[in-house]
Amino acid sequence: MKEEANPEGITVKKDDDFSEWYTQIVQKAELADIRYNVKGFIVFRPWSVLAMDRMSDLMECELQRKGHLPVLFPAVIPESNFKIESKHVEGFLPEVFWISEVGSEGKKLEEKLALRPTSETAMYKVYSQWVRSWRDLPLKIYQRCQVWRYETKATRPFIRSREFYWIESHDVFATKEDAVKQVKEDMETTENVIHEKYCIPFLFFERPEHDKFPGAVHTYAADTMMPDGRALQLPSTHLLEQNFSKPFGIKFVDKDEKEKYAWQTCYGPCISRIFAAVVAIHGDDKGLVMPPEISPLQVIIVPIYNTKNRKEILKKAEQLMKSLESACIRVSVDDRENYTPGWKFNHWELKGVPIRMEIGPRDIKNKEVVLVDRSTGKKKKVKEKDIIKSVDKSLEKIQVYLMKKADKYFSDNLHTAKDKDDLKKILDEKGGFVKIEWCGDIKCADAIKEETTGGVMRGTLFGKKEKASGKCIWCGKPANQTVYISKQY
Amino acid sequence: MKEEANPEGITVKKDDDFSEWYTQIVQKAELADIRYNVKGFIVFRPWSVLAMDRMSDLMECELQRKGHLPVLFPAVIPESNFKIESKHVEGFLPEVFWISEVGSEGKKLEEKLALRPTSETAMYKVYSQWVRSWRDLPLKIYQRCQVWRYETKATRPFIRSREFYWIESHDVFATKEDAVKQVKEDMETTENVIHEKYCIPFLFFERPEHDKFPGAVHTYAADTMMPDGRALQLPSTHLLEQNFSKPFGIKFVDKDEKEKYAWQTCYGPCISRIFAAVVAIHGDDKGLVMPPEISPLQVIIVPIYNTKNRKEILKKAEQLMKSLESACIRVSVDDRENYTPGWKFNHWELKGVPIRMEIGPRDIKNKEVVLVDRSTGKKKKVKEKDIIKSVDKSLEKIQVYLMKKADKYFSDNLHTAKDKDDLKKILDEKGGFVKIEWCGDIKCADAIKEETTGGVMRGTLFGKKEKASGKCIWCGKPANQTVYISKQY
Repeated sequence: MKEEANPEGITVKKDDDFSEWYTQIVQKAELADIRYNVKGFIVFRPWSVLAMDRMSDLMECELQRKGHLPVLFPAVIPESNFKIESKHVEGFLPEVFWISEVGSEGKKLEEKLALRPTSETAMYKVYSQWVRSWRDLPLKIYQRCQVWRYETKATRPFIRSREFYWIESHDVFATKEDAVKQVKEDMETTENVIHEKYCIPFLFFERPEHDKFPGAVHTYAADTMMPDGRALQLPSTHLLEQNFSKPFGIKFVDKDEKEKYAWQTCYGPCISRIFAAVVAIHGDDKGLVMPPEISPLQVIIVPIYNTKNRKEILKKAEQLMKSLESACIRVSVDDRENYTPGWKFNHWELKGVPIRMEIGPRDIKNKEVVLVDRSTGKKKKVKEKDIIKSVDKSLEKIQVYLMKKADKYFSDNLHTAKDKDDLKKILDEKGGFVKIEWCGDIKCADAIKEETTGGVMRGTLFGKKEKASGKCIWCGKPANQTVYISKQY
Repeated sequence: MKEEANPEGITVKKDDDFSEWYTQIVQKAELADIRYNVKGFIVFRPWSVLAMDRMSDLMECELQRKGHLPVLFPAVIPESNFKIESKHVEGFLPEVFWISEVGSEGKKLEEKLALRPTSETAMYKVYSQWVRSWRDLPLKIYQRCQVWRYETKATRPFIRSREFYWIESHDVFATKEDAVKQVKEDMETTENVIHEKYCIPFLFFERPEHDKFPGAVHTYAADTMMPDGRALQLPSTHLLEQNFSKPFGIKFVDKDEKEKYAWQTCYGPCISRIFAAVVAIHGDDKGLVMPPEISPLQVIIVPIYNTKNRKEILKKAEQLMKSLESACIRVSVDDRENYTPGWKFNHWELKGVPIRMEIGPRDIKNKEVVLVDRSTGKKKKVKEKDIIKSVDKSLEKIQVYLMKKADKYFSDNLHTAKDKDDLKKILDEKGGFVKIEWCGDIKCADAIKEETTGGVMRGTLFGKKEKASGKCIWCGKPANQTVYISKQY
């Protein structure tokens, strides 16, 4: 695995200037090239592509295990499809890239084509042909693809771009009950993959009425917390109920021989955006720290040799690599000449490889190697015969360590505000998610956004009945719900 | 793995009406839905997506093994990039879909964006920033993506669409010699993956001057032969030399401290098109026949039960599935109620699963199962304790059988024409690839295309010096090369 050399480390501390740290890590760990000459579009470089591939594979695997099958719908959607559901079109129309001409003469197309910003309107028209009978249900389908949105907000690599990579699943059911169950299954999937494999903590919020997915009856979004205390939205799952099945004509003949409209849900984990959370949450002042489950390499072997013993040590390193590979561990040997071991240590620390294995002449003599844990920096000597067992154990340990560390930061930054000033102060000084009571009036939500430093309402916590017994933190009228506020990306 | 029911088999014989057979198999094996309402765009359904994923994974694995790394470049290319190399733009401009407006009001973009028909002009401008020194070379990079071309020829699912899925690799070298070596490596990759894993035979032809990739110095294309004797172009690898590095400014400081233009190649296996060859070449009158290496399922277990013993037999089937899974075999149990075993047999034959395993009450008593080989239809009883070994062996056998069978059809249809009439006759009556001698004048190539039934020049056979000592088959002047003619898709 040859990578372009990049010897310079990150020059700011993550805690001092997270924004600059993020900019540097994207460049120095060679995650993306932001110099592509179309605004809001970036080049994803090998290290991020390999990691995102692992992330997608794990997500696909979980979706398939739960009965989803993959499809690939066209990237283009005819304007007429796109405009079938009115709220949906209202929400997405401002962000559509339109294909309206072809060829050298710029011949106009008969009908404009939207480059998909999301695929409801591509898929559901075909669903109306696929779904005929209760026997065709549930229909559980997903696609791994990219989508395009003409973002007017400032773009940042992985966090917000005009082109991003996601998986979108679109399910159809015979009953509302089944659809509601699917929403819970999507949340479980999020936990199993995003928390347990990517080590990213989150809470699911039911978004308030004014911030729902365009066309959804209920929107439940998983928010994580970035190191600067701002929320980053991860997957959301939407209960569409019959809002799309009616305009798109997705109906079926039920067991009672009556024709009924189907019930729908959709779920969209955005892999490239979640990767931003992986980079930001686990990274440290030396660079990336990749969770073992998703790291392109789990072990990097750095041979330490001089001109005399080079051949012997490289041979040993190759042997070790093969034995680790046979245990399904992703491993490589950095056998590049022209670079010192020290340079290689820095390089792979920057890339966040969970374990570095050092092997030098003395180690060979003692039949041992040195293992260095990227997450804690701890070193240990391991006997050759114990290597596989020890590496396996260390990888598991690092995975759990990163998850717990991220969980702790997350829970340490859940706050409760007792009044207006308290809310402002927490948002300014600590960040994180702030629990408040709210009257339910959008005017108060808007006022909070305007009069605090960008405090946006995340919604009510899903699955935990947090009663509101006091007054709205903003207007003082009786509160009817407990919601969370945070700054956001 | 639940699939929509489709009990009807294919109603024509492949040998009698290949075209109708192909149309039916795409629909009845649920490979694609052609009813999407944009011309030339189709919906790829689960069975084809799963197979193409396997195919892509195998290709990516081989590319990575040979030192390529994955990237993801934007799907959009600014018009100014697109127009940098004149022959390239001339070749692709007529097929470009243009994005020229955004949002609800159709705001015009400052610069039109091409939806990539191929990625040279997206990548090479960035390459000019990545390549600085001889140390940066070779740069071997690929991406797995989709491309869009406004085809004016008639489209057919998988064979020719306006949107297709491919892998494109774009390599940069310090010397011409290295670039020439890469072309040979690409050919070896084609052999290792497309022949050995997908069981698709081909020959590499150097395309004549008038049929090269726009911008290439040499184009080498792998052509396979469809069951109707027409050629289908599979990957091509192109020696670009310095045709792009000069206009795009891809230069490097060499070891001698002189600045030089780099040498380039590109290679583009189109997975969705190669899948058409897999479907067409291996399929038979009962449906698909999938090579074990790329089949989404390698074994389908069909339990044969009545209401009394159902539970016991399903339990056994699950056990067998788990034991096969533990040996890394892709397997599923068809436990659907409401369908008879006979219906299931037909269903999975249509899908081309290499091995069907039948398990009924008598088999359980005898501690055995029945294995049915999809490629030959042969049945055998296997003792329970030998199942994994036997399945592994059968899968290997089927893989080899399909490869040899396809090879034989291919070599049986290589012909030599002694004169004009002979050429016409072979093309009309037998099809296949016809060897002729040619003077090198494009007028004769054009005349052959017009005056035979669509005979198109494939070029000279790569790597085999076939001398031309006689006369051009068409004009009678002295021939200077031996070329092949065939009808084509």
